[in-house]
Amino acid sequence: MHIIKYMESIRPVLINGEWRKSSGTDTFQAINPLTREPLEGCFPVSPWEEVEEALIAAEKAFVALRSVSNEDRAAFLNNYAARLEARAEELVDTASRETALPVEPRLKSVELPRTVNQLKLAANAAEKASWCLPTIDTQLNIRSMYSALGPVCVFGPNNFPFAFNGISGGDFAAAIGAGNPVIAKANPGHPDTSRLLAEEASAAAEATGMPRGIVQLLYRFSHEDGSRLAAHPLLGAIGYTGAKSPGLKLKQAADTVGTPAYLELSSINPVVILPGALKERANEIISEFSTSCLMGTGQFCTNPGLILLLAGQESDHFISEVQSKFDQAPVGTLLGPNVESQLLSGIECLKSAGAEVLAGGTSDGSKGCCVQNTLMKVTGRQFLKESELLQTEAFGNQSLVVIADDLEELRAVLSCMEGNLTGCIYSSTEGADEDHYNQIEPIIRRRVGRLLNDKMPTGVAVSEAMNHGGPFPATGHSGFTAVGIPASLIRFSALQCYDAVRSSRLPVVLQDTNPTGKTWRRIDGEWTLKDIG
Amino acid sequence: MHIIKYMESIRPVLINGEWRKSSGTDTFQAINPLTREPLEGCFPVSPWEEVEEALIAAEKAFVALRSVSNEDRAAFLNNYAARLEARAEELVDTASRETALPVEPRLKSVELPRTVNQLKLAANAAEKASWCLPTIDTQLNIRSMYSALGPVCVFGPNNFPFAFNGISGGDFAAAIGAGNPVIAKANPGHPDTSRLLAEEASAAAEATGMPRGIVQLLYRFSHEDGSRLAAHPLLGAIGYTGAKSPGLKLKQAADTVGTPAYLELSSINPVVILPGALKERANEIISEFSTSCLMGTGQFCTNPGLILLLAGQESDHFISEVQSKFDQAPVGTLLGPNVESQLLSGIECLKSAGAEVLAGGTSDGSKGCCVQNTLMKVTGRQFLKESELLQTEAFGNQSLVVIADDLEELRAVLSCMEGNLTGCIYSSTEGADEDHYNQIEPIIRRRVGRLLNDKMPTGVAVSEAMNHGGPFPATGHSGFTAVGIPASLIRFSALQCYDAVRSSRLPVVLQDTNPTGKTWRRIDGEWTLKDIG
Repeated sequence: MHIIKYMESIRPVLINGEWRKSSGTDTFQAINPLTREPLEGCFPVSPWEEVEEALIAAEKAFVALRSVSNEDRAAFLNNYAARLEARAEELVDTASRETALPVEPRLKSVELPRTVNQLKLAANAAEKASWCLPTIDTQLNIRSMYSALGPVCVFGPNNFPFAFNGISGGDFAAAIGAGNPVIAKANPGHPDTSRLLAEEASAAAEATGMPRGIVQLLYRFSHEDGSRLAAHPLLGAIGYTGAKSPGLKLKQAADTVGTPAYLELSSINPVVILPGALKERANEIISEFSTSCLMGTGQFCTNPGLILLLAGQESDHFISEVQSKFDQAPVGTLLGPNVESQLLSGIECLKSAGAEVLAGGTSDGSKGCCVQNTLMKVTGRQFLKESELLQTEAFGNQSLVVIADDLEELRAVLSCMEGNLTGCIYSSTEGADEDHYNQIEPIIRRRVGRLLNDKMPTGVAVSEAMNHGGPFPATGHSGFTAVGIPASLIRFSALQCYDAVRSSRLPVVLQDTNPTGKTWRRIDGEWTLKDIG
Repeated sequence: MHIIKYMESIRPVLINGEWRKSSGTDTFQAINPLTREPLEGCFPVSPWEEVEEALIAAEKAFVALRSVSNEDRAAFLNNYAARLEARAEELVDTASRETALPVEPRLKSVELPRTVNQLKLAANAAEKASWCLPTIDTQLNIRSMYSALGPVCVFGPNNFPFAFNGISGGDFAAAIGAGNPVIAKANPGHPDTSRLLAEEASAAAEATGMPRGIVQLLYRFSHEDGSRLAAHPLLGAIGYTGAKSPGLKLKQAADTVGTPAYLELSSINPVVILPGALKERANEIISEFSTSCLMGTGQFCTNPGLILLLAGQESDHFISEVQSKFDQAPVGTLLGPNVESQLLSGIECLKSAGAEVLAGGTSDGSKGCCVQNTLMKVTGRQFLKESELLQTEAFGNQSLVVIADDLEELRAVLSCMEGNLTGCIYSSTEGADEDHYNQIEPIIRRRVGRLLNDKMPTGVAVSEAMNHGGPFPATGHSGFTAVGIPASLIRFSALQCYDAVRSSRLPVVLQDTNPTGKTWRRIDGEWTLKDIG
């Protein structure tokens, strides 16, 4: 009886439209970050044969998807979105148990609605088909568009159990929106949330007549098998959000066969606060920064992890105020023991490179996975000496302040910066900082994907103009965004050209008649909704 | 006196706006393909210090280019284009001497005008600025566009001394058009042509007030230094067209630091000729194919190197007719001894894998670098056994015919194909081949960048709808085209987003007013030429 119960508690994988027992023998359990105890339910580690089986099923689904209309694919995404709303209660409870993220407002009122919205936006993009930039040269009868490229494997991160989940998040929506099947690799931090999501994805696929294998779920496989998958000729692309070292291993394997691997790896998101801004509105900025850095226990890719100030009274005041805010603010629970240990080792690394701890700096002694709100400080001179170590990402409720002696030193510090997702500049609204701004903007601009003015970077709007991307090592390719529909769909597609192809054989999007009346197409150099001729 | 003459004959490199003696001690000479004798003029092999100096100068130019308007950059490209026309005589004579390509019509009436046109199109694209896909969300005040990403090193191939030259070709025009400086690495097959081009590029840059270092020329450096350059943090991107093995080494180095390397490596360009087409118009197709395969001595990236036929009388007739055309056609001179030896070894490789020689197959015994027009044949069954070796590119006047027993075998053969630039299907105009077409099109479509109907692949129009790209290993990334302006500019840019950035600090292209009145922008989901508000 015990044995049966144990067997039953091993969660099934989703392969080729079927929920079934994994053939793997190794298992793992998720950890409750509040108690450090394992949560109910064992999840299998899939062996290579199972990974390959999923890939082959995805390949079949990819071929079948060619015959599925954009409208039908959109219907699948909308059906899935509706199912997530219907099962919201169970989803947010499960996710909260696995991640310690609060049900309200975070999971229920912010992240799940955002996830549902992303799926609907992707449905709309798929249906409208403007995302694929149809381009037609009527004189030469050459036509091109972006098109699905094959099975996409999406590795979701630990910090967004819905909005970046491999089976429901932005990469998932983009890959399906562009017409590709998805193999989701659950994050081991929230496997049961991923399973529930996959149940709805799979049910939606069946309800809307999608090919079996359009969505599949594995919980875990070895790094070695990850590399094997990345280098497999059937794989179309990889979407990966997570830690740098395993991400780079995937990229290395994918690079050998020219498979695009879109990675989001690490970012410390420099924020420069110029003296005029502090003179003008110190309290406002102190409050904005503290909120942005500690919100969600700082576990955002766009967390402001590096603050750059010029030496002076205003900066001293800013630091001491932030220090007391950090000391007073409640300490949030981290996503799990590994996040906690990585944050602590990040802090140690920064200390070893010469950073001084102003607030927090150690484990807070509570039962859950927690680290004190941590504020650190270093001089510009020291930063220049240890610029590599001092750019170590300490993912969580931590930030490092760099005090530069003067503008020249600030420029030098910024010039050492690696690629980041975002960069912010706070400046006086009355022109007092313009010269400084003009001297630092060019240095920051080329090192970040998104440049902000007078605003913290943690809000990542799902806007078509958003860029949630940036120069390496923030991401694997600075030409693409992971957030923002329809732009994010382009990553999971290939440019396909039709040269003198007979009209009846063209994809509908490239035929003379605008297929929806709403598809933007570039015809002879002009964007238009009109038909040809 | 002799020594002085020798010293004088070492051609200078172009670094940071100056023509000067290289610090390198090794030199090389170009070879006359008609005589195998070295041509006049020694060219230096640059040591690492010189490569790095060029990179640092390019970086300075990159920073300076931020302050150069789109109009001024366009003026530079147009000025350069005009200079090439003015010096046409000397350019085509030099190029013909170095490559054995005929002055007329190829160099003077086709390739040089095409090159001039590409520069003008890039000038127009730079000025109009629609290429950078400006995208504006007015509600959230988030704005994004593609922007220059840093110094670009362009490695030109041997087969287009003008149109793909690192200092004048498509990648050059695209990189400059997008706002990046270019370090050109001349192809060692035509260094003097590259030098003359660079003289005009440099003079045009000076005449139009461009930053020093916007265009630079090196003739050669070691593969090791190439890798060092590719992995250098200052390098923005690589454009490379050429042999596979050195290209992959560059990619490997660039991949370690996430620098995009756009490669065009190899392609055998499968052409399927279905029975209905042969029944209908055999003579026409025989003539089209023979012309396409032997034109320019077959030295095109899009040369039809693999013909796929179904077994039958029509196919036998096709083969025997082509065989006699190949026997009778004059034998062209190849670009140089290395092209000749690679072609011969490619033919040997195909033979060793079971292909039979129907025409040619060996060196033609003349003084110049020549291989007989070579037609080879293999069964579908044999192809399936040795599909990797039988996809060896034999660059030049050669093609391999594969005879499949039936449609299933043809589908199997196509399913083995690696990524290619192009794929063609010839079919009956009266519907006799529709079923075959529908069964093979999906297999070919995803393996090629450009799909053609009833047309050989060798014409690569400079159209905005063109895709001269394709899945790996044809190129390094299937999402980009090397030919076709404005699309080709995107490769040499990064996506840059402005979130709540004050209006006066935005790039002109993203400000409320349409900067030229002619810049297409995507505002709140609609493409428009209008201003905001």
